[in-house]
Order: sequence, then structure tokens, then C-alpha cells
Amino acid sequence: MVPRIIFGRGSFNQLGDILAPKRLSINAPFIYLVDDVFKSNAFITSRIALSYDDKIIYVSSEEEPKTSQVDNLVEEIILMTKERPSGIIGIGGGTMLDLAKAVAIMLTNEGEAKDYQGWDLVKNPAIYHVGIPTISGTGAEVSRTTVLTGPDKKLGINSDYTPFDQVVLDPELTKNVPKDQWFYTGMDCYIHCIESLNGTYLNAFSQSYGEMALELCKEVFLGEKLSIKESQDKLMMASWHGGMSIVYSQVGVAHAMSYGLSYLLGTKHGIGNCIVFDHLEEFYPEGVALFKAMKEKHDIQLPKGICANLSDQELDVMISISLSLEPLWENALGKNWKKVMTPKKLKELYKKM
Amino acid sequence: MVPRIIFGRGSFNQLGDILAPKRLSINAPFIYLVDDVFKSNAFITSRIALSYDDKIIYVSSEEEPKTSQVDNLVEEIILMTKERPSGIIGIGGGTMLDLAKAVAIMLTNEGEAKDYQGWDLVKNPAIYHVGIPTISGTGAEVSRTTVLTGPDKKLGINSDYTPFDQVVLDPELTKNVPKDQWFYTGMDCYIHCIESLNGTYLNAFSQSYGEMALELCKEVFLGEKLSIKESQDKLMMASWHGGMSIVYSQVGVAHAMSYGLSYLLGTKHGIGNCIVFDHLEEFYPEGVALFKAMKEKHDIQLPKGICANLSDQELDVMISISLSLEPLWENALGKNWKKVMTPKKLKELYKKM
Repeated sequence: MVPRIIFGRGSFNQLGDILAPKRLSINAPFIYLVDDVFKSNAFITSRIALSYDDKIIYVSSEEEPKTSQVDNLVEEIILMTKERPSGIIGIGGGTMLDLAKAVAIMLTNEGEAKDYQGWDLVKNPAIYHVGIPTISGTGAEVSRTTVLTGPDKKLGINSDYTPFDQVVLDPELTKNVPKDQWFYTGMDCYIHCIESLNGTYLNAFSQSYGEMALELCKEVFLGEKLSIKESQDKLMMASWHGGMSIVYSQVGVAHAMSYGLSYLLGTKHGIGNCIVFDHLEEFYPEGVALFKAMKEKHDIQLPKGICANLSDQELDVMISISLSLEPLWENALGKNWKKVMTPKKLKELYKKM
Repeated sequence: MVPRIIFGRGSFNQLGDILAPKRLSINAPFIYLVDDVFKSNAFITSRIALSYDDKIIYVSSEEEPKTSQVDNLVEEIILMTKERPSGIIGIGGGTMLDLAKAVAIMLTNEGEAKDYQGWDLVKNPAIYHVGIPTISGTGAEVSRTTVLTGPDKKLGINSDYTPFDQVVLDPELTKNVPKDQWFYTGMDCYIHCIESLNGTYLNAFSQSYGEMALELCKEVFLGEKLSIKESQDKLMMASWHGGMSIVYSQVGVAHAMSYGLSYLLGTKHGIGNCIVFDHLEEFYPEGVALFKAMKEKHDIQLPKGICANLSDQELDVMISISLSLEPLWENALGKNWKKVMTPKKLKELYKKM
């Protein structure tokens, strides 16, 4: 859980005040990992006050984050700093937030990022790290994981040291998100809720967060009454609550399958979830019906046939990646999930996409 | 914000595993502050594993917690321990949780607890402290305050060091709460929601938490469908979310007035809020109507005429305590609250109670 949060339009302006007391020395800089779409965007960059050796590293989020990318960033930061940094600040979407969390961990833990993919493998506390989302829906701002594609698997570094020490939720930062991206990433949150609320791991904690986030998603994507600002505010809170809902629960079929797509085809997480979820009536009938209504209302065209030309071998890789995510399948389908979701059944599903 | 939470029936059994890695040395014990109603209650006490110099201190919650009580507990703990304790664990209702937070702070900060009543006056981080509620509704498990009656005022120690490091939410621990107490304390949460949702400080963060808690309260206190266990689970989550709603917002008229009652008459917080709220139709018309419906459904008789025999001097003390809580009034009535809530008006309100 994130111990410190500020929320509010314009709260990004408080970043300097938040960081000042956390500076360890003039040789221990703050390193900002910023999505490179903001490179010449004064709205964001003019408000990042660099002192002493502080640096902004612009990072592309064109691709899903990789363990090798984390290792490269860590090496770059070690080479450019005189002392261990005072903190890492991630500014961007899920990719940037996950990279910031992973880099903060790998600055104090030996070896390579791939060694820590899994649950509770991190030995030393991460350095101070701050997350500032500029798009709403991923839940990366609140989660205790940092999803990474490694050489062998797509799996997060799940640990008590992963969550941010501070999160700044400023809905104004999301104002320039392109419409498609807004929809796909918002649906990431919506799908979290559906998977959590329909999962066998559900308890009253996850249920109350999931229901709250779901209501907010409905207001944002199907309602008629919200102003643009209200809609931005509410989607940012939906993302937060949707993330909280799965901290103590799990996601399900859509995430398990979309990880396979992402591993093999590099499909980005948000759109990948949408492509998969669109075909999951069998598992989430009401959730998928509502999803189709949202898709229609916002005139979203999803790519089709992305698996049509895959070889059997490629499909098998995807299936094996997907089926390895056992907690997701168990949450979705119960303890006997292997009887329901056979490799054959999964292949049929993928072939529809 | 609380960085670590576990939720679930029976999760209290995990306390030993949670505390073990936090033990600083064999001379640095864990000190448990436990409500003395649990003194011979094996359901609770048999599951507290005492090692080395660990101690249980039983504390009465008959009265609202006092700054002098905090100072006495701190002195008692310093005298009984060889080294600064590894942690303080509060087990009980709001009183016990607030005492645990305050004691954890005062073990590392000089002077007396009364010196820290206010906002952000605490200089040093508190020692590790854990909160385990045994009744739902106060929000003390999540708040960044610890409400204390001092020699001059009833006001909390509000600071970034106040929130618990760990909270254990085990709804099973609430199973033996007497019905009246269940209602009064549950209404503390309900009233938090109404005050937060109708306040001028409201933002999307507080609104989403407040609405979620309000829905859960309605289900628990007016619904027909919940099993006893579901009702316990949901009320515990309502308390959590209600507390979250006011972390970045504020309470309002009912709390401002009930602090006055509590200061002068020692009225406990839960019942005090109910007595006051019952007369606040003018400020919270829908909220009070629903409150009256809940009161009737559960056949709750509130005390009447508790202010009938007070002298003018006594009333003036109460009014002055109440009006000193400026942020609460401003949240409830806006920046010009002093024009609405004059001492005369407040006296009329108190006299009805």
C-alpha cells in the first residue's frame, strides 16, 4: 500500500515541496523517468524543478517494459550519479510507473531484474520512489507489482518494497491523452474490476473497492452527466480503487490471455486486454455486454484477426505463457481450472482474436 | 495512509508472523494495549503470543482517551522496558487505537502529549505501531489523527507519523460487540460519510470513498439480505472507507458539537455523535432522515435532555470548545460559517439535546 497520496487538480505543483525533505545530499540527485511524449511539453516539464545533479531521463513507452530495459536504466543511473540517488520519480502511464518501481528496487538489490520476477524475492528496501500517473486506468500507481517482460516470462516483481512511497494524483495531467488510449487504459481498470468481482478470491475488501471503481467506470464511460474535469477526476479515482481491489485479490482470464499476446506479439497491455475481453462472454457475460456498449458509445474499433496468421508453434508459446499464470486462472475459474481451460480450449479462444 | 493492511476473518492469527521480523532485540518488547473488556476473553488473549519481555497492558475505554493517560502509559512503558519497545499494538475500539498511536509517538518525542495536539507538530517518527479494531465505525484504524482530551482542548495529534504502520482487519473480532455499541459506533462511520459528502472540502477522492462507505452502511443498517458475517465484514470495510473519506476532507457539524459534549460531560464519541446528529435536520436533511430510519429499525433509544440542566457557564464552555474547531465548521458551512453558526444559534441547538 502506498503510504502517502495527494489528490487534486494542480497538485503536481507540490512535487518540489514533497521532494525537498527527501534529498539525502547534494550528490544524491532525484532521477525523473518521464514518458518521452512529454519531451517538449512545457505543461509537464516546466514544472519539474531540477537542482544540483537531478536529471530527467526520457523513456519511450512504445513497448511494454522489459527487464533488460530496467537493467540498462539502472546502469545508466549508477554511471551518471556520484551517490545513490535520493529518489526515482516516474511520470507517465503504467509503463513509466512500472519502470520507476523496478529501477528503485534494482538500485539496492544485486543481480538483474529478471532474477526478481515473482513473489517476494526482493531482499533490500527500494530507494524512495514517487509515482505520478498521466493517464488513468492501469492501477500501477497503487499496485505492489511492476509487470515486466523478461527473457523467459512476463511477470511482475511483486514485493512489499514495490509500492510507491508517494503518489501524486493530479487529474489535470491526463487532459491531453488521445481518445483511443484513454479508452483502452480506462478499460484496463474496468476489466480489473470485472475480473476481481467475479473471481473466487473475492472478499469484502476487494469487493468494496471493485464495486466503487466499477460504478465510477460506468459513470465515466456510459454516463451523460459529467463535465470533462469531473470525468478526469473520477477516472483517476476509479484507477486507484480498481488497483486496490486487486492488491488483495487477483485478475482473471482477460489478463492471463493478454499477457500471452503481449509476450509474443508485443501487444500493449491496455489494447491487448480489450481485444481479449471482447471475446470473453462465456466467462463474464454481463461485463462483456457492458464493455461492448462502452465500445460502441465511444466508437472504438478494435484490431481484428491479430492471431489469424500465427503458426501452431507461436500459438503454443502464447498458450504456455498464459497458462503459467496459475493464480489468475485459479481466481477466475476456481481450483479445478485446468479442467475448464485446456490448451485446446485456449487455442480456440486465441484463434478468434 | 496505512502502508500495510491485511483483511479477512481469522487474519488476527497472522499477528505473530507479522510482528516477528519487526522485533529489534530480545530486550525491545512488543507492548499490547488491549481494551480491558477482553481481560478474561480467551478468544482474543489466547492468540496473543508473548515472547521475551512482551507485555499486555489492559486499559479501560470507559472514558474518552486523555493526554494525561498517554503520558502515564508512556512512563509506565519506559519504566517496564530495558530498551525502547519494538512496537505498540492497539487492540480495541477507537479509544485503544488512538491511545496506541499517541503512545507510539510519545515514546520518541519529548515533552507531554498535550504539546502535540494540533497539526504537524510531531518531530520524530513514532515507533512501529499496529492497529487491530474490535469494533467497526470509528475510522481510527486509518486516520492520521488520535483524538485526545487535554487540559485545554479536545484535539488530535494530526501528523504524518500518526497512522499505523500495519492494520489487521479481522471482522470476526467484532462478533461480541453489544448491540447499542455496534449501532453508535457504526453511526460514527455513517456520520463521517454524511459530513464529508456534504462538506465544502469534498473532492473526487473523498467523494468516492464516502459514497462507498455510505452504501455499505445502508446495506448493513437498512438492508435485509446480509448474513451476520457479511454484515460484520461490510461494516469493517465501511469504517475503513469512511475514515479514508475524511483523511483528505473533514467532518462537520455533528463532530464539532459532539466534541463539546465530550469535553464537558465526558459523553463517549459514538453516542455523542448520535445525540447531536439526531437534531441536525437543518444541516443534513436527507442524512438525518435516514439516520432516524436506522434508529427505528434497530430500536435504539437515545438519551434525552442531557443538556437540560447545564448552567449558562457550562454551555459557554461547550460552545467555545465546539467553535474552536474551525476547519470542521468551514467544511460544513463554508468560509462564512461564523455568520451562520453564532454562539447564540449553537446554544439553542445544544439546549434541544
